[in-house]
Amino acid sequence: MSKIEKISKWLQENNIDAAFITSTENVLYLTGFPCKPHERLLAVFIFPDQDPFLIVPQLDAEDAMHSGWKYDVIGISDTENPWEKIRETIKNRYIRIDTLAIEKDHLVYNRIANLDKIFSKPMYISAEEKIWSMRMIKSNEETKKLREAARGADFAIEIGVKEIAAGKTEMQILAAIEYQLKKEGISKMSFDTMVLTGANGASPHGVPGNTKVQHGDLVMFDLGVVIDGYCSDITRTVAFGEPSEQQRAIYETVLKAQTAACNAVKPGKTCADIDLTARNIIAQAGYGEFFPHRLGHGLGMSVHESPSVTSVNQLVLQEGMVFTIEPGIYIPGIAGVRIEDDVLVTADSVEIFTQFTKELIII
Amino acid sequence: MSKIEKISKWLQENNIDAAFITSTENVLYLTGFPCKPHERLLAVFIFPDQDPFLIVPQLDAEDAMHSGWKYDVIGISDTENPWEKIRETIKNRYIRIDTLAIEKDHLVYNRIANLDKIFSKPMYISAEEKIWSMRMIKSNEETKKLREAARGADFAIEIGVKEIAAGKTEMQILAAIEYQLKKEGISKMSFDTMVLTGANGASPHGVPGNTKVQHGDLVMFDLGVVIDGYCSDITRTVAFGEPSEQQRAIYETVLKAQTAACNAVKPGKTCADIDLTARNIIAQAGYGEFFPHRLGHGLGMSVHESPSVTSVNQLVLQEGMVFTIEPGIYIPGIAGVRIEDDVLVTADSVEIFTQFTKELIII
Repeated sequence: MSKIEKISKWLQENNIDAAFITSTENVLYLTGFPCKPHERLLAVFIFPDQDPFLIVPQLDAEDAMHSGWKYDVIGISDTENPWEKIRETIKNRYIRIDTLAIEKDHLVYNRIANLDKIFSKPMYISAEEKIWSMRMIKSNEETKKLREAARGADFAIEIGVKEIAAGKTEMQILAAIEYQLKKEGISKMSFDTMVLTGANGASPHGVPGNTKVQHGDLVMFDLGVVIDGYCSDITRTVAFGEPSEQQRAIYETVLKAQTAACNAVKPGKTCADIDLTARNIIAQAGYGEFFPHRLGHGLGMSVHESPSVTSVNQLVLQEGMVFTIEPGIYIPGIAGVRIEDDVLVTADSVEIFTQFTKELIII
Repeated sequence: MSKIEKISKWLQENNIDAAFITSTENVLYLTGFPCKPHERLLAVFIFPDQDPFLIVPQLDAEDAMHSGWKYDVIGISDTENPWEKIRETIKNRYIRIDTLAIEKDHLVYNRIANLDKIFSKPMYISAEEKIWSMRMIKSNEETKKLREAARGADFAIEIGVKEIAAGKTEMQILAAIEYQLKKEGISKMSFDTMVLTGANGASPHGVPGNTKVQHGDLVMFDLGVVIDGYCSDITRTVAFGEPSEQQRAIYETVLKAQTAACNAVKPGKTCADIDLTARNIIAQAGYGEFFPHRLGHGLGMSVHESPSVTSVNQLVLQEGMVFTIEPGIYIPGIAGVRIEDDVLVTADSVEIFTQFTKELIII
C-alpha cells in the first residue's frame, strides 16, 4: 500500500473528509516531490475515496509533473489567490469538507483563517501522529539512504581525528571537517557540527569556538551529514595525550553502557528497556547524576523524530525503526564523554549503521 | 523610546490588550535576549500600560536574567504546562485579554488553541506589520553590525575569486570559501552559498555542483555571512578568460544599471523609483525580458525583510533603511550576470556597505 493509500485508509476509518499537509518534509515524504516553496504555498490534499492533488508554486509545477507524482498538480502563480483556487478545485470535485486533518504544530494562523473561510470553519484533526508513526518505520529504500549517511558521518569523524593537533582550535578542526566533506560532495550537515575540547565537552550549552586543543584533553565530535534527504548523527570522544584515570573510567563506563544498549535492541523490547540498559550501568558506576538526557532519538528525514528513547517511553520496538543510542557522562568543568551510534531494528536484532571504532583512541 | 515602549504605545493607540510574540528573531529584536528554544515555548508578553515579561525554557532562565532584560523572566521546566503558568501570571496581574496581537504568519494551530483556551477566544490582531516596520529602520548599532557583515562578504568574494582555476568545480570553490571564512571565525552564512559557472549562472534554479570552471565562463558568486546576528548578501560575477563581446555587453549593462540605482538612493525617493532606475537601463539596452526579478530586498536579522524593492512598491525611503540592489541579466543556456550591493539610506543619500570592486575582473 502506498503512503497516500495509507493516509486515505486512515481518513476513511476516522471519518475525516480530507488531509491538508503543508510541511515540506511531510509533502516530500508522502508525494516524493522535493520542493522549497519559501513563503509560497506547497500542499498535498488527500481524500478518503478520491485521488489526491498537489499544490505547488507555478515555478515548480513543471518539475512536479515530471517527478513521478501520478496525480493532479495545481500550479499557483504569484498573482493568483491559492485559497480561491483550492476552493474551486474542491467544489468542482463535489467534495464537502467538514473535518480536515492538518499539521497542528505546523500550520500558522493566517493559513487556518483561510481554510476557515473557504470551508466554513471545519473541525480540525491532527494528522501529525499518523504521519510520524508512518515515518517511524523505515522502508528498505530509506534504510539504504540512512546507511549511506552513516558512512558520511564515519568519514567526517575520521577527518576530525586526523586534524587534531596541539594548539588547533575547535573551529579550525570543524572547518577542516566540513571542507573535506564538501570536496567529496557532501555539503549538508544534519545540524551545526560540534567539536568541543576539554571542559567544553562537559557543558550542555557547548558551542565550538577558539578554545585550543591541549594535551590531556578529551575531544568530542558530534555531527551528522544529510545524504539524499536522510540524516546521520554520530558522536565520538577521543583523548589527546595519555588520559587520566578519571577520564579512562568515564570513557569505559560510557562505552560499556552504549554497547550494552546497542546489544539490547530487538523487536519486542521497549524504548524504556533500551534507555534503562545504559542508564543502569552508568548509575551503578556512580555517574547517574552526570547523565541528564534521554538515551536517543529517532532519525530519518529529520535529525530528531520518533521514537524518543527515554526511560519512560513504553513504545515497543519494531523492525524498521532507526534511532540513536548516545549515553554520556558530563563532569562539569572537567570533561565530557559521549558515544553515539545510529541503529536499525532488524527482524530479529539490530544493525549498527555508524562504524567508526568506539575503542578509546589516544592521539 | 525603547522598542518595548514603542510596542506598548502601539497597543495603547489601537486598544489592544497585549502582544504575544514568539518568533526567536522578533523576541531577540524586542528583548535583546538570544535564545534557541527548539520545540519549547519562548515568548515575550507586552502590555499597553504594564511591564512586559519574558517566558523562556527553565534551562535558559538564568541566562535571560543576566542578559540585560530589566523585567520579569518566567522559566518553564519540561514538566510544567506553560499555558497554565501564563494564565496564572496574567490573572495575578489583573489583566483581561480580549484582543491579542500575535504573529499571524508564525503562530501555529496548537498554540492558538491554547491561547483560545486560557483567554476565552480573544480577537487576534496582527503584530507583524508593526514589528516589520520597526525592524525596517536600523539603529546605529544595527548598521554597525551590517557593515561588519558586509566586510565578511567582501572577504568571501576575495577568497572565491582567488580560488578560481581551470577544472575546479563550483563545489570545490564554495568549500574553499567557507573553510577560509571558518578559519577566520565566520561560521554562519546568510543562506546557502552559490558559486555558479557558465550556463549555470543563467538558471533561476541553479545549485552549485560538480560543473567545472572552463575558459570563457562567467563565474557568479552569491553569498552572505552573519555577524552578531546580522546578515550580508553580495553578488559578484567575474570572467574566467577573455569574455566574449556578448558577455561584456551584458556585464556593462548590469553594472550601469546597478550603479545608477545605487546613486539614485536617498530619502524621499520610493522603492519603485530605485527599481525602475535599474530596470529602465536594462530594458533600453534590450535585455528587459532577461531581468525577471525585483531589484532587491531589505536586509537585517533576516536576509529577506522589508522593504521589498520592486517596480510597484511606492514606499518612501527613509534614513536607516538597509536593502540590496541586485539587478541581473540571464540569457538561458548562455550566461548570467548579477551584481549586488548592500546599501544604507543615509540622511541625505546612500552608504554602500559592500565594497569589493564591481569593475569586470578577468582571470
